Amino acid sequence: MTDSVQAHPGYIGEKDKVLARLKRIEGQARGLQRMVEDEQYCIEILTQVSAMTSALRSVALTLLDDHLAHCVHDAIAGGDDAAARLAEASAAVARLVRA
Amino acid sequence: MTDSVQAHPGYIGEKDKVLARLKRIEGQARGLQRMVEDEQYCIEILTQVSAMTSALRSVALTLLDDHLAHCVHDAIAGGDDAAARLAEASAAVARLVRA
Amino acid sequence: MTDSVQAHPGYIGEKDKVLARLKRIEGQARGLQRMVEDEQYCIEILTQVSAMTSALRSVALTLLDDHLAHCVHDAIAGGDDAAARLAEASAAVARLVRA
Amino acid sequence: MTDSVQAHPGYIGEKDKVLARLKRIEGQARGLQRMVEDEQYCIEILTQVSAMTSALRSVALTLLDDHLAHCVHDAIAGGDDAAARLAEASAAVARLVRA
Repeated sequence: MTDSVQAHPGYIGEKDKVLARLKRIEGQARGLQRMVEDEQYCIEILTQVSAMTSALRSVALTLLDDHLAHCVHDAIAGGDDAAARLAEASAAVARLVRA
Repeated sequence: MTDSVQAHPGYIGEKDKVLARLKRIEGQARGLQRMVEDEQYCIEILTQVSAMTSALRSVALTLLDDHLAHCVHDAIAGGDDAAARLAEASAAVARLVRA
Repeated sequence: MTDSVQAHPGYIGEKDKVLARLKRIEGQARGLQRMVEDEQYCIEILTQVSAMTSALRSVALTLLDDHLAHCVHDAIAGGDDAAARLAEASAAVARLVRA
Repeated sequence: MTDSVQAHPGYIGEKDKVLARLKRIEGQARGLQRMVEDEQYCIEILTQVSAMTSALRSVALTLLDDHLAHCVHDAIAGGDDAAARLAEASAAVARLVRA
């Protein structure tokens, strides 16, 4: 049971959506480099950094949701590693909140 | 006085360092896409997202420091827009803390 | 099944620990008022605010961990509201990360 | 000049407002203890923790704004410790953002 879970991570259904968002975030990182190269006004750059941070957090929350849903499905399916997965999820939440 | 300030934003001294960090962050965004493409384990992807968020915040704090130093220098030099710049800086801090 | 779950929230095992931590946080809030009354140095007050925020987040993470563990246990026990609880937990994480 | 600055911290004008907000935050800490005593639903407790965290951050941003305004005023008035105060402010922002 565990193996099939590992082979199909929780976010698989949203893979394309997550990839599209990460591509946009990569674009934001490039846009920020252009702004710094052009010596644009610091506060405008900071506004873009905040937007990029929000976008990144939004991806993290999507991944986390899917992971949590997976933990519960796995538990229902009788997987015995639900507790271990949950501990990982908790640690990920803690890192995310502090990141 | 204001114009010369606008022409030389506060982070100019650290421009190369800031650009290098943004380049690395762009690389992290690409790395994340690869991880999702390869369907790597969700928790490992989340760990990378947290690392990228920290790197981004670190850039923001550098930009903000330089902007604040600039506000004070500008005030000492008799610039009359120190208050307006400071208000912008406060708003940027608030966005950053909430981002 | 649901009723018994409602009657025994997930954090019950750690109730005393959570209460002790909240009592300390209440004390920090009183300490901050004294600092402001005495017009202590702003930066020192901010340091205490940061400490109190960390303590509060630590309580939140404990509550969340217990809730998530409960979701999984509930799912294993055949509770049919695991999905609804998980959605609540996800929303709580999102609020926490943005708080 | 420095002494008078120390004697009148930046937030003095908003002292009553800051105290009132801290009093409310203390009340929130007591309310949370009641919720835990009564074993209320975990997610509702977490919602209150998020509200309290927001209130606390709002106090921090007010204190920080006043400190920054003070740094600039001090710099204009010829105070020679503007740089040191600014460094403290930067460190406080960093703690706040990570808190």
